[in-house]
Amino acid sequence: MDRLTRQLHFAEEAGRLRGVLRHTVLTDPPSPLEGTSARRLENSAEHSWHLSVMALALAEHAPEGTNIATVVAMLILHDLVEVDAGDLSVHAPAAAQERQHLAELAAADRLYGLLPDDQGSGLRRIWDEFEERVTPEARFARALDRLQPILQDIRAGGQAWQSQGVTADQVLEKVELIEDGSPSLGALARRLVEKAVADGILAPASE
Amino acid sequence: MDRLTRQLHFAEEAGRLRGVLRHTVLTDPPSPLEGTSARRLENSAEHSWHLSVMALALAEHAPEGTNIATVVAMLILHDLVEVDAGDLSVHAPAAAQERQHLAELAAADRLYGLLPDDQGSGLRRIWDEFEERVTPEARFARALDRLQPILQDIRAGGQAWQSQGVTADQVLEKVELIEDGSPSLGALARRLVEKAVADGILAPASE
Repeated sequence: MDRLTRQLHFAEEAGRLRGVLRHTVLTDPPSPLEGTSARRLENSAEHSWHLSVMALALAEHAPEGTNIATVVAMLILHDLVEVDAGDLSVHAPAAAQERQHLAELAAADRLYGLLPDDQGSGLRRIWDEFEERVTPEARFARALDRLQPILQDIRAGGQAWQSQGVTADQVLEKVELIEDGSPSLGALARRLVEKAVADGILAPASE
Repeated sequence: MDRLTRQLHFAEEAGRLRGVLRHTVLTDPPSPLEGTSARRLENSAEHSWHLSVMALALAEHAPEGTNIATVVAMLILHDLVEVDAGDLSVHAPAAAQERQHLAELAAADRLYGLLPDDQGSGLRRIWDEFEERVTPEARFARALDRLQPILQDIRAGGQAWQSQGVTADQVLEKVELIEDGSPSLGALARRLVEKAVADGILAPASE
């Protein structure tokens, strides 16, 4: 198969991410013309796009020297493995997280393997870097990935938290990952979680 | 208002692009777990994401020296104005295109104006560059923006073409924009359009 055919096949398979639903409830007001207004679950493709916009808008909250183009490439690719593995809530139990991790590794082998070898290994490395969360780029990308659903959940009145029985201590665990990638966004997230508890849309820590 | 508050407001308004529906019909096979399988219209947020994936996968089909990070940033931002202006079919008549252009300029003023001035003007320049279609980055980004719906329309059996009464000559006009940004992707698009006519899913040129 020639390179272009393999690249198009990869792009087509990647497109299936538009059919992977997350746990986040969207409540955007309707847009003009053909807009939709119903509350619905977000899919992983539009989630990835929204994170990329956030990376451009919030770039100055990354540590100095962070390569934002790399952050954006990570965010575009970070959920691609869900085409095969589906989305799992960040609040799922550890055993489910471990099964998910193995499913995502197999998915990465298959999906990046669709591309010509040199290219597939290059894009796979970007995903591996995101997963390892060592570089400033990966830590900032992960911070955005954790911040975005908190912002969405607050706008939706806490519905996703309530339906999963999530309490403030569980959300604050995720806030630590935001602080690790961006102190200023971490401080913001901590304030938002405290306010969500005060407003009664997020249950306080269980004893 | 402080910078972070303005940046978050911009990201929130941008998120409404998830509610702007395009004319393209999605037919991705269902994904595992919570996937959806119904045929539905694509929204502009997931479209923008898919184009960004294509930019990474098809980067070698851009002219040598094209900055792919700039292409990706353009693709993430290129439809943002639709939050206010809605999506218009590329096959709409010229008068409607002109009205759309004015609405998009007003939308760009409002949306990029939500950001701190220095930052808003920087991101606005990326959108302006895309619209002007002079640089290799803008021409390659536009080529992908024209190629993606052709690929989708073919996979959907030509439904979007048929429902809008679009004929091959109209699609081939768009192919010229693909050729301008990427000769190899333009040649691919031309072959695909010829095959779509031969397969009977796209009406031949009207006389």
